[in-house]
Amino acid sequence: MASNNVYHGQAAFEPGLNVKPHTYDAKTFDEEYDVEIKVTHCGICGSDLHTITGGWGPIKYPMVVGHEIIGHIVRIGSKVDATKYAIGTRVGVGAQCGSCLHCKQCDQHLEQLCDTPIYTYNSPSTGGYITQGGYADYYRCHVKFAVPIPEALESDIAAPMMCAGITTYSPLKTHGAGPGKKVGVIGIGGLGHLGIQWAVALGAEVTAISSSNRKEKLCKEQLGAHHFLDTSNADAIKAAYKHFDIVLCTANGSDMNWGKLFSLVAPNGKFVLVAAPEKPVSFHAFSVISSQMSFVGSTIGSPSQIEEMLAFAVEKKVRSIVEVMPMEEAASALQKMDKGEARFRIVLKN
Amino acid sequence: MASNNVYHGQAAFEPGLNVKPHTYDAKTFDEEYDVEIKVTHCGICGSDLHTITGGWGPIKYPMVVGHEIIGHIVRIGSKVDATKYAIGTRVGVGAQCGSCLHCKQCDQHLEQLCDTPIYTYNSPSTGGYITQGGYADYYRCHVKFAVPIPEALESDIAAPMMCAGITTYSPLKTHGAGPGKKVGVIGIGGLGHLGIQWAVALGAEVTAISSSNRKEKLCKEQLGAHHFLDTSNADAIKAAYKHFDIVLCTANGSDMNWGKLFSLVAPNGKFVLVAAPEKPVSFHAFSVISSQMSFVGSTIGSPSQIEEMLAFAVEKKVRSIVEVMPMEEAASALQKMDKGEARFRIVLKN
Repeated sequence: MASNNVYHGQAAFEPGLNVKPHTYDAKTFDEEYDVEIKVTHCGICGSDLHTITGGWGPIKYPMVVGHEIIGHIVRIGSKVDATKYAIGTRVGVGAQCGSCLHCKQCDQHLEQLCDTPIYTYNSPSTGGYITQGGYADYYRCHVKFAVPIPEALESDIAAPMMCAGITTYSPLKTHGAGPGKKVGVIGIGGLGHLGIQWAVALGAEVTAISSSNRKEKLCKEQLGAHHFLDTSNADAIKAAYKHFDIVLCTANGSDMNWGKLFSLVAPNGKFVLVAAPEKPVSFHAFSVISSQMSFVGSTIGSPSQIEEMLAFAVEKKVRSIVEVMPMEEAASALQKMDKGEARFRIVLKN
Repeated sequence: MASNNVYHGQAAFEPGLNVKPHTYDAKTFDEEYDVEIKVTHCGICGSDLHTITGGWGPIKYPMVVGHEIIGHIVRIGSKVDATKYAIGTRVGVGAQCGSCLHCKQCDQHLEQLCDTPIYTYNSPSTGGYITQGGYADYYRCHVKFAVPIPEALESDIAAPMMCAGITTYSPLKTHGAGPGKKVGVIGIGGLGHLGIQWAVALGAEVTAISSSNRKEKLCKEQLGAHHFLDTSNADAIKAAYKHFDIVLCTANGSDMNWGKLFSLVAPNGKFVLVAAPEKPVSFHAFSVISSQMSFVGSTIGSPSQIEEMLAFAVEKKVRSIVEVMPMEEAASALQKMDKGEARFRIVLKN
């Protein structure tokens, strides 16, 4: 498994989902702290679509996305712990591949809040290199952001946890989802199907919240949700008025009715947003003032919290529900994801 | 000081600020738990203007507003503690005059978050009566919401504390403003001039934040602010990027640049909104997600917290800065307030 400086990936060459094979230079390998990973799996995250379509703003093409990377170590820098990161070790990389490692947040093991983070793709890195992601044969980054994968987790199951998993686990843990707490999870997709499972595993009373009742059976039988709330049902919305201590919002449609969703939050409760809609969030101030609600943003999680989450997944038998497709079919997979047909995560495999 | 069932106040008869004398029926006196207050002072709150102009939505005219009421007890119900509320006792009533007293929040002494609160004016009360406020000769309500005023606080100084005071004190206390915390207070008006003083008294490092530098000297010399930030100065905004643990927003203009203000909040920090702009709050999701910021609503405070605040004001020598005008000049006072000429609170006096 030799390493090299020319990578092969599936890149977007213009705004849209039609990715195509692309050969490109890897970023310069840091001889001290980088690891190089031969990618076996990469999950498809909603962020990938927002990025390559230009929905979150203009980007530089060609662009290889993908930040739910699983693979094996093929090369390590001189200062990397060769025991933990022996050649052949299976690791994962999520949405972040670098940080300054010395700001206040990095010192507190909150690297995701670093003043100068580097993201896994579409992010300025050393020497002006724009990072390219995991729809590729190889990936390289600082060892800090390569997290060993527990043996009990298959690679296709582990891949979505690197972003969808930590994005939902981190705020639930941070904001105290657990016994005695009522938690609602809005959106039953790549993030939501894991969010429901984490909240259940943490001991909360969990309601899956969706804009139709199509996924009710699945949420209860496969994901362990205790209740289901269909937001198109006005009576059900009324009955759930100020019901939830924590609402985790994983949906990011263009038609979000924020006032209606905020009405579900208990006094002094939290509405945690982890998905970034392309349109501005807009609501009347009274909808947060009168219940003293907090509208909280949350972004991924730190490498140490990813390790904690993976161990928790093994312990509690939390599993991503995935569909595996060949890496060469990335374009079709993105189309399927865009149509909302992924159940619940598509994982590309080399 | 006899009590009666016909009150005289200054009412709005149509949308606008032109209040006029008005004679109206008092709400039915609850013979068990009500107290009747002969009003001596009533502060003018921004809410009064939003309400009578119809800016927060249509209301039923005529309407007497005012919810920073100070006066003396002239009548008490049979179950009211006649020692604490002896005839002649000086008390204050803030923005809330009633609650169910038995819901989960009331049980936790968070009456301001009651499922069925009654506000001091423009609020449905017993028997369909719409409450009328304190720009009047008398006021009556449940004893729970009439808070005794410490002897050391003059009535004109105490009046603004009943709403502006508790609205700023409560979130600063709740969200941990204190030693080691950097607190910014946006808006140097009725609320902000008290917010700055509370934050300083609580031991935080406090920055007064305003859209010009006109009030810098005053904020530092009279209110004790350690720093001043002029939001029209782009360099100053840049220098304060992610600086504050807590930003308390007391401003509610129609031109709020939320993204710019959110940039001042530290990772995992809180932006607390206590003023309700008439226009929707609108921002891009990333502006809260990437720093894991909380956008927190806060509304007044409970009667027990008002008591705590009044004692704290005496202890720390926090004082409202007021201008006293005769009750009959309420219309002129409202005009002055509307023009932003109040320094910092106008208190009407009978």
